[in-house]
Amino acid sequence: MDKKLDYFVDSRQLDKELILSLFEKTKKLKGSKTFPQTLKGKILTTLFYEPSTRTRMSFEAAMIRLGGQVISTENAKEFSSAIKGESMEDTIRVVEKYCDCVVMRHYEEGAAQRAADVATKPVINAGDGKGQHPTQALLDAYTIYDEIGRLDNIKVAFVGDLANGRTTRSLAYLLGKFSGVEVVFVSPENLKMREDIKDYFEKHDVKFSEETNLAKILPTVDVIYMTRIQKERMTEEDYLKAKGKYTINEENLGLIRKNARIMHPLPHVEEINLLINTETNDKRVAYFRQAENGLYVRMALLEYLLNVKC
Amino acid sequence: MDKKLDYFVDSRQLDKELILSLFEKTKKLKGSKTFPQTLKGKILTTLFYEPSTRTRMSFEAAMIRLGGQVISTENAKEFSSAIKGESMEDTIRVVEKYCDCVVMRHYEEGAAQRAADVATKPVINAGDGKGQHPTQALLDAYTIYDEIGRLDNIKVAFVGDLANGRTTRSLAYLLGKFSGVEVVFVSPENLKMREDIKDYFEKHDVKFSEETNLAKILPTVDVIYMTRIQKERMTEEDYLKAKGKYTINEENLGLIRKNARIMHPLPHVEEINLLINTETNDKRVAYFRQAENGLYVRMALLEYLLNVKC
Amino acid sequence: MDKKLDYFVDSRQLDKELILSLFEKTKKLKGSKTFPQTLKGKILTTLFYEPSTRTRMSFEAAMIRLGGQVISTENAKEFSSAIKGESMEDTIRVVEKYCDCVVMRHYEEGAAQRAADVATKPVINAGDGKGQHPTQALLDAYTIYDEIGRLDNIKVAFVGDLANGRTTRSLAYLLGKFSGVEVVFVSPENLKMREDIKDYFEKHDVKFSEETNLAKILPTVDVIYMTRIQKERMTEEDYLKAKGKYTINEENLGLIRKNARIMHPLPHVEEINLLINTETNDKRVAYFRQAENGLYVRMALLEYLLNVKC
Repeated sequence: MDKKLDYFVDSRQLDKELILSLFEKTKKLKGSKTFPQTLKGKILTTLFYEPSTRTRMSFEAAMIRLGGQVISTENAKEFSSAIKGESMEDTIRVVEKYCDCVVMRHYEEGAAQRAADVATKPVINAGDGKGQHPTQALLDAYTIYDEIGRLDNIKVAFVGDLANGRTTRSLAYLLGKFSGVEVVFVSPENLKMREDIKDYFEKHDVKFSEETNLAKILPTVDVIYMTRIQKERMTEEDYLKAKGKYTINEENLGLIRKNARIMHPLPHVEEINLLINTETNDKRVAYFRQAENGLYVRMALLEYLLNVKC
Repeated sequence: MDKKLDYFVDSRQLDKELILSLFEKTKKLKGSKTFPQTLKGKILTTLFYEPSTRTRMSFEAAMIRLGGQVISTENAKEFSSAIKGESMEDTIRVVEKYCDCVVMRHYEEGAAQRAADVATKPVINAGDGKGQHPTQALLDAYTIYDEIGRLDNIKVAFVGDLANGRTTRSLAYLLGKFSGVEVVFVSPENLKMREDIKDYFEKHDVKFSEETNLAKILPTVDVIYMTRIQKERMTEEDYLKAKGKYTINEENLGLIRKNARIMHPLPHVEEINLLINTETNDKRVAYFRQAENGLYVRMALLEYLLNVKC
Repeated sequence: MDKKLDYFVDSRQLDKELILSLFEKTKKLKGSKTFPQTLKGKILTTLFYEPSTRTRMSFEAAMIRLGGQVISTENAKEFSSAIKGESMEDTIRVVEKYCDCVVMRHYEEGAAQRAADVATKPVINAGDGKGQHPTQALLDAYTIYDEIGRLDNIKVAFVGDLANGRTTRSLAYLLGKFSGVEVVFVSPENLKMREDIKDYFEKHDVKFSEETNLAKILPTVDVIYMTRIQKERMTEEDYLKAKGKYTINEENLGLIRKNARIMHPLPHVEEINLLINTETNDKRVAYFRQAENGLYVRMALLEYLLNVKC
């Protein structure tokens, strides 16, 4: 790593070497009984313009586990300065003075980059509208790395609503950094992956194909990355059709390879059958472990970004 | 104590020995100038699906006083995962990964038990709809123990809205663990204590009676446990009648025994006269000390539950 | 300082000696690489009945930087006790039991004094309706002290909406403690400073005048204290007129003295031209440094108030 990052808003900022270095750090933290208090005396601000308790809490826990402290707002959109017409940039300019790092979720695509541009402290993107959610991508990729044992030479199915989900997009950018990767997009006709990701895959030698039949694909992949079919974005008829076809359940579970993993960014609704959900003895069901990995990946990232600056 | 609890959602989980052991711990903590940092390195999550600043803050202060840290949400009901249809159980499954203990308030009766059933970390019920509020019961019972000096052989009046209040119900369960207890239910006809509590008292040898005349009872009891008449649940006419009859004020204060205590779970409105409220020199007025006891009881409980697991 | 303060709700509570002593402490803290952990083991409650993330976060960071901890509510107005009709005084009586200091923002003028009257722990006013915002005044005065080098013998222009802004009112009270101070009120006819402040200035030998022409005043003052023209309080026509006339921009920037400072309590909207805003190389543009000073002034204040009590 020649060049250290001083903020993290886009999965594409990371190269393979840095990803693997973060993952080694993550693995070490995950295996620790007690954590190094490397962030003692540091303050993290979680500035959430949209609520997302799960993501916010995992960042806050990550900071605290490493000895740091947190100041937080769950609902920055309604705080008086934003209402009075203050720009997000000015809010960042002030708030960063009180802390050592800002984790921001915002409802506008591109907001995280704009924040990073004006800040003198590290800014981390915790989701910016239809843009990216790069720490989700990191924990997804780490889960593959940890459970499958590698990120090169893997075959992954992205299943469900690929048109609207930012998690598959962010993960796609990370997978593009590795070699021998093959991706199958499994989605209804009206929810297909957008062209920019396909272009990116072409440029980065990721083999990809499109498929509408989930059952046909299940026996062929190392990772099934499920996403929620977003009911609110389609007709009731389309929804019921998609829901039925893009679900993992008792019937098609048997088609999945023994050493494959079922992942999901959560929250999940009907796209994974409830029985499977609670049947945690099946080691292929990886999504709660995946969520837990968010804690350790964010610890590693905070350590990396805050050591750059201190 | 043969069997240690690994969660706390219902007053009935506690036996007399454990109650008294928690109260001894509480008393010791309350008398300390500095607190043992026994929860150092531990994280408490306060997951409130309904806001309750008082309860939440006392849990958070309890955790911090013992050296622990907190991650928190005031309004989990509106966070995105719940809105997207995620089950409370799945939220618990993820959130518990980031912490060592979860305190949850939820709007549905039974939610706390469901959370405890799926969690691997201790879950504490901070109120579940019309169900229970068992740490309120603990602080109420502790206040009697601390101020009256005993929990056996006491006579307590429950006054006001006994049909809807969960605090009297939870306290009733605790009192049932002691001997020689007598309870008088003082309420309007339409707000009488429900049958299940009377059955419980019968089974546990608690003498009880019902009364509508407060003045007649005041000179006979050790503890007057007032509750708020919930205006929103009755006609204006019924409310005004109840309000007038179930109030402690300048006129009937003289009827109360010198060594008795007036308690109230707070917030109180008109059921206790304002003048009495601020007249803190009268040692019988116990409700602000009662609220303060919440801090120490919760410290003792957190220590108990977290030591089980660590 | 003969008499120590045990709460802080009004700028007028401070005398010149105490102000300068706080500012010396502030200066020392601002220059420190690491902070003394003087508030270790202390808990601050931030009780905000109205959201104000900027102010809340700077108090919380101040507490944490000095080794303390925080319990917090962003939206106390909607928490259940207030909704159920509990008085603010009773909320304070309970909440102060869980902590060592309460910072309160409230929507009613006078609320902070009422809170301080019932509390046994220090209460700090973080804004009470149309009343005061005395820690804003402190950070404003500190910024003048730090950047101009003195508070005696200065000439200050208050610009914009002087009728409704509580920041200029609170700062006026502090300036009245110093000698040789001259203030020019620059505002539209309908947004003039109220009479009580003028009376206060007369009583405290502060020279003052009123002016509607900003350009005429700019070359004559040490400090230009801009405020937001509050659109919502006037007709569209009046607003556009005021906005145009009470703005610092490329054209009138040249009129301002080389060693003068442009201040603003923030958030700012159009009253300061965006280009100037980001042109941080011009040392006269002081408002982001001013906001940062809030952290250090509040650290000094917390240390002062908490040492009184402990």
